[in-house]
Amino acid sequence: MKLRKLILLLPIFLLVLLSATCTKPENTTAQDMPSNPQTFNWKMMAVWPEKLEILTQGIKQFIEDVGIISNNRLNITLAGNAGELSVFEAVSSGKIEIGHSVAYLWTDKIPAAQFMASVPFGMDARQHLAWLNNGGGLGLWQGLYKQYKIMPFPMGNTGMQMGGWFNKRIEKIADFKKLKIRLPGLAGEVIVQREIGAIPTQTDDPVNALKDGNLDAVEWMGPYYDKKLGLHKKAKYYYYPGWHEPGTTLELLINLEAWENLPDDLKRVIEIAANNTHHWIYTEFESKNAQALKDLESNGDIDIRAFPDKVLTKLREATKKRLEQKAEADRDFEKVYKNYRDFQETMDNWRSKAQRLK
Amino acid sequence: MKLRKLILLLPIFLLVLLSATCTKPENTTAQDMPSNPQTFNWKMMAVWPEKLEILTQGIKQFIEDVGIISNNRLNITLAGNAGELSVFEAVSSGKIEIGHSVAYLWTDKIPAAQFMASVPFGMDARQHLAWLNNGGGLGLWQGLYKQYKIMPFPMGNTGMQMGGWFNKRIEKIADFKKLKIRLPGLAGEVIVQREIGAIPTQTDDPVNALKDGNLDAVEWMGPYYDKKLGLHKKAKYYYYPGWHEPGTTLELLINLEAWENLPDDLKRVIEIAANNTHHWIYTEFESKNAQALKDLESNGDIDIRAFPDKVLTKLREATKKRLEQKAEADRDFEKVYKNYRDFQETMDNWRSKAQRLK
Repeated sequence: MKLRKLILLLPIFLLVLLSATCTKPENTTAQDMPSNPQTFNWKMMAVWPEKLEILTQGIKQFIEDVGIISNNRLNITLAGNAGELSVFEAVSSGKIEIGHSVAYLWTDKIPAAQFMASVPFGMDARQHLAWLNNGGGLGLWQGLYKQYKIMPFPMGNTGMQMGGWFNKRIEKIADFKKLKIRLPGLAGEVIVQREIGAIPTQTDDPVNALKDGNLDAVEWMGPYYDKKLGLHKKAKYYYYPGWHEPGTTLELLINLEAWENLPDDLKRVIEIAANNTHHWIYTEFESKNAQALKDLESNGDIDIRAFPDKVLTKLREATKKRLEQKAEADRDFEKVYKNYRDFQETMDNWRSKAQRLK
Repeated sequence: MKLRKLILLLPIFLLVLLSATCTKPENTTAQDMPSNPQTFNWKMMAVWPEKLEILTQGIKQFIEDVGIISNNRLNITLAGNAGELSVFEAVSSGKIEIGHSVAYLWTDKIPAAQFMASVPFGMDARQHLAWLNNGGGLGLWQGLYKQYKIMPFPMGNTGMQMGGWFNKRIEKIADFKKLKIRLPGLAGEVIVQREIGAIPTQTDDPVNALKDGNLDAVEWMGPYYDKKLGLHKKAKYYYYPGWHEPGTTLELLINLEAWENLPDDLKRVIEIAANNTHHWIYTEFESKNAQALKDLESNGDIDIRAFPDKVLTKLREATKKRLEQKAEADRDFEKVYKNYRDFQETMDNWRSKAQRLK
């Protein structure tokens, strides 16, 4: 073979050699490694103020985890805010791909979304996750959000809350009459009913509202954040249990088109990282609330009391009445309520026996 | 430029072109994508019989998830058995890289391992995970296993169990005297103490042992697996609560050298996939036990009863005595017991208030 011919063939040899190196790099036998991995860059928003650091940290960890375990093929960055849009609307419209929030914020649009967050006298955190995973709850949730082009997943639970701070004792249901109380959402609808007659009152500054007498009582979040805010300095009585929110599940919202564009492995990355963060947030809340309650108990100025059973019975009856009204008004609500209630009945029966150790 | 010179330069052009294509394949902008991803092939074993399908499925899902989210860089295959070695020894020696089991199996070697699984009258599933993640429990666990060259993580919880099947009623602590009962582990040590005087009895076939009168009572797993085994056909009384195991955490065992050889991102893959499986197993047990208990309740032949409070009080006292004996005999046990007990006290106080809704 002549030199000239060799030189002419050289590019072809090099091509073959380099192609082989390209598709099978040295030191690896990884199978099915995508040869052209596609990268996704998502923007994320959350409904929480920065200072709720358990949630802020949880979301940051989720973003970091997704980056690490996806090998940076799915990069999520926190976007500032959505302007006029809610996080739900921003995800729904595709302005952002992913958001973190809580389903009871969207009950004006979707009344049945209530069951995906928390219901007064409803399931606790553990039961609710069992319902979502094993009782058909997640399928119902995804069905409700589908028309808004959103794929929801659970990500976080605040655990049970306390019953709130009161500046007077609650001995009977009549003590709620004309009580100016900050208690938002469905529980607020329950206590506004005529047979209870409380006056739900909105405020962003419950500490001063209590001090100024604009509020008689306030339900905020739980011992840890209540103590941080200083509520224990403005009201004497701290009541339990948190009948109004027995375990609030938080949600990851994903734009449906963005979700469907992901390859299956990145879908699984999201699911697993979200589940991991779900439990991280939950155990953070549980540990910090337990410690904060202990600290509050050692403060002699605070009177930590249980609502009397007869008060809880009345609140439970009023809750049932309100849920049934809402079920009559909305077919989705009725359908989800029935599924939720049946599952809870089975789980409550088990809990009443299995969890009976004091 | 002459044609010949051009031909001579062609290989260099091609090299540059192909190198660019190699390091930055089309359709991707993935950053930090390892150019030489290393692949790891691990063998795994579990201590469970195949028929405990919740665990079998959980482990299979874990293996599949690790494959998917690691992009097949960490491939785990189930190995048959370790011959003479226990799963713990097989992982410790490096014969296999990873195993699934429960820490109370290794208390002969490491008495304090008891606290990593479940302790009579100890923490429930939720509290235990909070302790591991937020109370220093996981660090203590990893410290205990380090001399055996094993890195442990929680992966799964069976939830609370029932108190067992009895062929006679338990009205007072004296009814345990000379009772032939299958109740392994620390709870077995508790009831063998003189003031209780039961006769813990081993059996792999509790159904026939009950039928033949070789056993008076048996604690097995919980309503779902108890019912599958048919225990409800051989004993009339089904007692609760499961004081002996209030929420048993299962464990992932990883050979320490294999762990340390993993790059950080694959370590995180393991942690996140294990946490995900932890909760999958737990909610499976909770949902299936709740449904099975309901089914058993609808069977008129079974008498489902609570242990009287005074019996539980005696069992609790006997448990405390036994734990203190063990703490005196082993410094690690003493250290972990103190940490565990303090955390449980804080969590129990919170649970007694927050989880007070019936």
